[in-house]
Amino acid sequence: MADTARSDRIELQSLQALDDADPLAAMRERFLLPKNTVYMNGNSLGPLCRDARERMSTVVDSEWGKELIRGWNTAGWYEIAGRLGDKIGRLIGAAPGQTVVSDSTSVNLFKTLAAAVALRPERRRIVTEAGNFPTDLYILDGLSRQMGQDFDVDIRRRDDVFDSIDEQTAVVVLTHVHYLSGAIFPMAEINQRAHDVGAIVVWDLSHSVAAVPTELDATAADFAVGCGYKHLNGGPGAPAFTYAAARHHREMRQPLSGWFGHAEPFVFDDDFVPAQGIRRMLCGTTPVLGASALEASVDLLLEVDPSARHSKAKKLSRIFQELIEQHCAGLGLRLVSPADTEQRGAHISYAHEHGYAVMQNLIAKGVVGDFRAPRGMRFGFSPLFMRYTDLHKAVRTIFEILDSRSYLDSTYQRKQAVT
Amino acid sequence: MADTARSDRIELQSLQALDDADPLAAMRERFLLPKNTVYMNGNSLGPLCRDARERMSTVVDSEWGKELIRGWNTAGWYEIAGRLGDKIGRLIGAAPGQTVVSDSTSVNLFKTLAAAVALRPERRRIVTEAGNFPTDLYILDGLSRQMGQDFDVDIRRRDDVFDSIDEQTAVVVLTHVHYLSGAIFPMAEINQRAHDVGAIVVWDLSHSVAAVPTELDATAADFAVGCGYKHLNGGPGAPAFTYAAARHHREMRQPLSGWFGHAEPFVFDDDFVPAQGIRRMLCGTTPVLGASALEASVDLLLEVDPSARHSKAKKLSRIFQELIEQHCAGLGLRLVSPADTEQRGAHISYAHEHGYAVMQNLIAKGVVGDFRAPRGMRFGFSPLFMRYTDLHKAVRTIFEILDSRSYLDSTYQRKQAVT
Repeated sequence: MADTARSDRIELQSLQALDDADPLAAMRERFLLPKNTVYMNGNSLGPLCRDARERMSTVVDSEWGKELIRGWNTAGWYEIAGRLGDKIGRLIGAAPGQTVVSDSTSVNLFKTLAAAVALRPERRRIVTEAGNFPTDLYILDGLSRQMGQDFDVDIRRRDDVFDSIDEQTAVVVLTHVHYLSGAIFPMAEINQRAHDVGAIVVWDLSHSVAAVPTELDATAADFAVGCGYKHLNGGPGAPAFTYAAARHHREMRQPLSGWFGHAEPFVFDDDFVPAQGIRRMLCGTTPVLGASALEASVDLLLEVDPSARHSKAKKLSRIFQELIEQHCAGLGLRLVSPADTEQRGAHISYAHEHGYAVMQNLIAKGVVGDFRAPRGMRFGFSPLFMRYTDLHKAVRTIFEILDSRSYLDSTYQRKQAVT
Repeated sequence: MADTARSDRIELQSLQALDDADPLAAMRERFLLPKNTVYMNGNSLGPLCRDARERMSTVVDSEWGKELIRGWNTAGWYEIAGRLGDKIGRLIGAAPGQTVVSDSTSVNLFKTLAAAVALRPERRRIVTEAGNFPTDLYILDGLSRQMGQDFDVDIRRRDDVFDSIDEQTAVVVLTHVHYLSGAIFPMAEINQRAHDVGAIVVWDLSHSVAAVPTELDATAADFAVGCGYKHLNGGPGAPAFTYAAARHHREMRQPLSGWFGHAEPFVFDDDFVPAQGIRRMLCGTTPVLGASALEASVDLLLEVDPSARHSKAKKLSRIFQELIEQHCAGLGLRLVSPADTEQRGAHISYAHEHGYAVMQNLIAKGVVGDFRAPRGMRFGFSPLFMRYTDLHKAVRTIFEILDSRSYLDSTYQRKQAVT
C-alpha cells in the first residue's frame, strides 16, 4: 500500500464517503474509546459506553451506597436477572420470559446441558464439534465424568455434525458462530434435524448475540447460552445469559439449584421447589454490579435497528477482507474464515506463521485484534463504534508489519496472552 | 426507655465514652453511609467504602475504558481470582494458594461438594443440619438428584450433627455461623471428628469471614466457601470464594470444568486438563467488576488488627443484647441466638410474632436490620463502621415501636422482602 499512493488515496476517499453516509455514525460518540486506536476486538471484550459508565456510578454511589440492602427492592436488583434477560431476548429472537442473566457462560452451559440430557433420559449420545470453543467441550467433559461417564460424547468434524444427529442422540451442543473462523451453523436446519429425531439442541451464542441475526423462537430452538462481555459490551467478566424455550419450562430441572432458582427464595424452606418458568435456571445471588453495566450496554444496542447493525458489520468485514487481499497478498496470511460474509459472523481470522508476534506488533501500533493459538489472528467488526476509515489504518499497519517483518523483533515474542 | 430519662443519659454517656476510646473509630470515615441511619445489616449487604468506590471508578474508566482487552494483562484481571483469594485467605486462616474468588456461593458449594464426594467414592452418606442456610440444602439436593439419588442425605438437628458423623459418612456440609441464630459450630472438633472416621467437611463461611475468628489451616479444614457481599463488603452480588486445603489439590476434581480452571486456558486445546492447585476450582471468566469492588473492600479489612475487629463486634453485640433486655422486656421479643457472645457470630436474632412488620417499621425509622421468615428479626454488628452510640438509637427505636405497637399500621404489612 505504501507504494501505491494513488489507489491509497482513492480508498481512503471512498471509505470516508461511507463514514459520511453511515446511519450509525453518531453511535461512536456514545462510547469512550482510547485515542489513536483501531479497536477490532469488540468480539472479545466490548468497549465501555458512556451509559454503562454512568450506570456504574449510579449503582455504586446511589444504590449500593445509599439504598444499601433496600436496593434489592427499591433499585430493582432482584428483577434484573429477568428484566435484562428479556432485553437480551429481543437481540436473539426470544419472546419475554425465556431468558435470564446470571453466572458465566461456562456455568450456564453446565446448567443447560444437564437440563437437556435430563429431558432425554433414555438416550446417552451427545454430539458436538471438534474445535468448538474449548469451554464448551470442557464443560461437557465435566458433566459426563460427574454422571459416571455413561455418555457417548461424539466430537465430530464440522462437516459431519449434521448427519451424525440420529435417533440415539440426546443432545447436540454447538457454537452458533465459531469463535475463531466465525463460521455460522445453520440454526434452523440443525434444530429441525434434531427435532426430527427427538434430540435437543443447546446453542452457544457467545459470538452471535448482537453480531448476526439470531432467531431462537422462530427456529424452534431448545436452549441457548451466551456471553455478556463480547458484542454486548457488558465489561470484563460480565454475567452471561441462558435461554430456555417456554415449552421446556415445566419439565426442565438443572442441578445448580441455588436459592435464586427457588419458587420462594425468601421463605427459607429446607426443601427446594423450583421457580416457575425461566427463573429455575438461576442459581445464586445476581451479580448486580456486572449486570448493571451490561444492562446499560444492552439498552444502547436496543436503540439501533438490528438490520442496520448487521449490514454495517458485514460491510466492514467485506471491505477489510478486500483490502487485505489487495495489499497483503503474498505476505503469509491465510484466510481461515469462510470467504463469504453471509457465512461468517462479525469477525474474521487469518493464520500466519508468526501470528502471535504479528498481533503483538499490531497492538503496539494501535490496531487491536487478538491472537488465538496456534496461529490465528482475529479481527472483529463492531458496527456501533467502528468507522470504515479505521479499516484503512488497520490494513496499512498490517501491511507495514508484514512487509517489514518487524514482528521478528524480540519485543513481540510470546508471553502469556489472555482474552 | 422513654420514661427512664436518667438511665438513658447514663447509657448514652457510657456508650459515647466507648466510642471515644474505640481504636477503630477512624475506620467509619472510610465508608460512605447514608445519613440518619443505623445500619445493622452489614451481615447481609456490607456498605460501600470509599476505596471500593474509587476502585470501581478506576476499573471502569481507566482499565476497561482505556486498556480494553489488554486489561487482562496490564491491569491484573487474570490474576485477581488467586490474588484476591489469597487476601481472603488471610481472613480465614488459609495460607496462600488455597483460596480463589469466583462465581456465587451456591455455585462454589456445588463445586466443593462434588469434589468432596468424589474423594470418597465408596461412601454415600452426606450429613448436614436441618435449618442450614437454604441454598446449602438446595444445592445438596440438586447434586444428589443429578448423581442419581444414590446419596443418603442425612439432615440432622443441630445437636445431633456431631454424633451422626460416622464411618459411612462421605461428606459433612455445615454453615459455620448460622445465618439466623448466629450459633457457631466448633470447627476444630467437627473437622477432627470427621477425619477420625475418614469423612470430609465442607464449611460455608458466609457469616464467618471477617465476623469471627476462622482458622481453616489450623483446624485441618478440607473445603470451604463463603460470600463476598456480607461482612466482606464487596457489593450486591459480589463474587464468592472457595477454599481447598493443599493436601486435596492433586486428587480433587470438580465437574464445572470451564476454561478458567484449565491448566492452559489460552492454548485452546479440545481436552480438559485441570490447572495445578486451587485454580482448578475456577470455571468461567472472572467477574472483574464485582471482584474489583470486593478487592478494595478486603484490602480495607486487612488494614485492621483482626482481634480488634472481633472484640469490638462482640462488645457491640453484648451491649445491644443488654440494652434489649433492659428496655424491651415483656414486649414480645424472644432471643433465638445463643445468649453467650462467645457462642455466636457478629449478628443476633430475635423472634417476634409481628417480626416482619416490626422490621419494616424500624427500617422506616432509620434502623436497618433484616427480617428472616417466619418471625426472625436479625441485627448485625460491623466493627469497622458501627458506633456504640448507634446501639442507643437502635434500641430506643425498637422500644418505641414495640411499646406503641405502631407496627400494626398497614404500611408495614408484608410485601416481598429480599436480601
